[in-house]
Amino acid sequence: MQTLLLNRADVVENARMADVIRAVEDAFAAYERGNAQMPAKSYIDLPEYNGDFRSMPAYLNAGDWDAAGVKWVNVHTDNVEKHDLPTVMGTIIYSDPETAFPLAVMDGTTVTRLRTGAAAAVATDHLAVEDATSLGIVGAGVQSYSQLEAIASIRPIETVVVSDLDDERVQAFVDRFGDAFDVRSGSIEEAAACDVLSTVTPVESPIVRREWLGDHTHVNAMGADAEGKHEHDDRTLLDATLVIDDYAQTTHSGEINVPWSEGTLTDEDIHGSIGEIVVGDREGRTAETGISLFDSTGLAIQDIATAHVVYAHANDNDNGDPFDLIDTRVR
Amino acid sequence: MQTLLLNRADVVENARMADVIRAVEDAFAAYERGNAQMPAKSYIDLPEYNGDFRSMPAYLNAGDWDAAGVKWVNVHTDNVEKHDLPTVMGTIIYSDPETAFPLAVMDGTTVTRLRTGAAAAVATDHLAVEDATSLGIVGAGVQSYSQLEAIASIRPIETVVVSDLDDERVQAFVDRFGDAFDVRSGSIEEAAACDVLSTVTPVESPIVRREWLGDHTHVNAMGADAEGKHEHDDRTLLDATLVIDDYAQTTHSGEINVPWSEGTLTDEDIHGSIGEIVVGDREGRTAETGISLFDSTGLAIQDIATAHVVYAHANDNDNGDPFDLIDTRVR
Repeated sequence: MQTLLLNRADVVENARMADVIRAVEDAFAAYERGNAQMPAKSYIDLPEYNGDFRSMPAYLNAGDWDAAGVKWVNVHTDNVEKHDLPTVMGTIIYSDPETAFPLAVMDGTTVTRLRTGAAAAVATDHLAVEDATSLGIVGAGVQSYSQLEAIASIRPIETVVVSDLDDERVQAFVDRFGDAFDVRSGSIEEAAACDVLSTVTPVESPIVRREWLGDHTHVNAMGADAEGKHEHDDRTLLDATLVIDDYAQTTHSGEINVPWSEGTLTDEDIHGSIGEIVVGDREGRTAETGISLFDSTGLAIQDIATAHVVYAHANDNDNGDPFDLIDTRVR
Repeated sequence: MQTLLLNRADVVENARMADVIRAVEDAFAAYERGNAQMPAKSYIDLPEYNGDFRSMPAYLNAGDWDAAGVKWVNVHTDNVEKHDLPTVMGTIIYSDPETAFPLAVMDGTTVTRLRTGAAAAVATDHLAVEDATSLGIVGAGVQSYSQLEAIASIRPIETVVVSDLDDERVQAFVDRFGDAFDVRSGSIEEAAACDVLSTVTPVESPIVRREWLGDHTHVNAMGADAEGKHEHDDRTLLDATLVIDDYAQTTHSGEINVPWSEGTLTDEDIHGSIGEIVVGDREGRTAETGISLFDSTGLAIQDIATAHVVYAHANDNDNGDPFDLIDTRVR
């Protein structure tokens, strides 16, 4: 038996965004219904290298398919400067739940990017106005691309306002998407006035003011992924229909972690989880909803759901490189 | 940058047993000195498939080298009968601790076999009589081969007595090693009388009686890896110089778990950990030692130490298949 090796190009080729969004939505539903297993991330901290490793195993049963695997991912802050390598890299082992055979090993960096975009799209689908045509993006780094790709696949986005302190990054973003959308560089204030706003920065003090948001803006707060990180005004979090991906992760390291720890924001301010909305236990946007905000920290089930889409499509199309990796002899 | 793919043959080719034993010994020492990180195994239980997955991340710093990685491994009890696949399969991602780049992906099934043999060899080296020439093996399954290979590399083994209910497995073992050793089929009683005894069975009631052991037999109790498993008489455990690999794992799922849970065996009956012996904080065998027993459950640091040896040697010798797996572009 052979394990399929899937590099960046293979992942991109086989991760049809519409399928990834549906799979991630299914994963949120499975998690909500108790049909997923996601042990807490295990951390290995290496202060001597200014980095850490995280092991993220998961299983989910979406009804007509199930999937298992592990993502091994890191955050090494000095990588760019010292080693010309990304801060974050990931590798995924995707396994058959029934036999545990490793069906694929794939580029987890690319999967992470895609599943993060897909999570924003699921939230946007349930929480943004139906006719959202404008998208603001704050932070033009690696995650911004999949925000636009994913969100544009569920809303009729025409105008994109991208904001970043680094002009080169803004220009690269405009170059990439200028043909398909009306993309322009703008201030955070201009980005925040759009129908949908995705923030993908690592800042530790809020940079988006409450009053800059449109009356019905839906915000995807994707940036905060560690204690102390915080992109938005507390007033935004308190005023918004506030939706989280996971209670434990968001209160510990998501957008809400700072005001929640300080007691400024309490459990009563949380409208519900994205899983509750997906399965219909909580309402998404209604005629009465003003601003809404999705606090996304990223769940291992999103990675495994995305890996499922990539593997299934690659396998069907004979993509990737099959390799005899594992000894499967029975003795 | 490329990730080295190492299949069964590559792992076997590059895992020189003497180097693996030294690396595993270094790993036990690093763990004892607090120079290792080994978060608890994360389990995903899949009763619908009669199986489970385990994620085993680890880092260790042995002084002149360090290593990080994760083993993703399973136990699927129906695999042999239903799918003609092994009950246990493993995949290892081996990473550079400094940058987190995945240096290699390798066959973890083969690494598990080797590192388990190496652990028995480390214990045997510290606990068996110096001139041990006879080795008994109970259970002629997949783990028995590396027991002989590893132990024979640190003691002058000449005679091997192998005991198993399955004659075909015994014959396969004899065929494999008959040229190099005086190997014969025997009863458990005969195996137990040897200078060194390795038990590698999954039994849940003891099959090796105290009185069958030689006066100075060193026992490697390798089989128990789950609650309720138990290969040896309680009297053996109480009489022996009892050495464990890890307190939490052995009291939960090692050879001692049953009598320890029942209170028949207490912490006072444990001589020490293999790490304490390796670093010299506890004595190994002395002139006064009678029987000794090593309770091995298997630690993630053993896997990563073995992966380190395999990768370093393969890389030096241009073995394995380099593959562009991970997106390393910096944006």
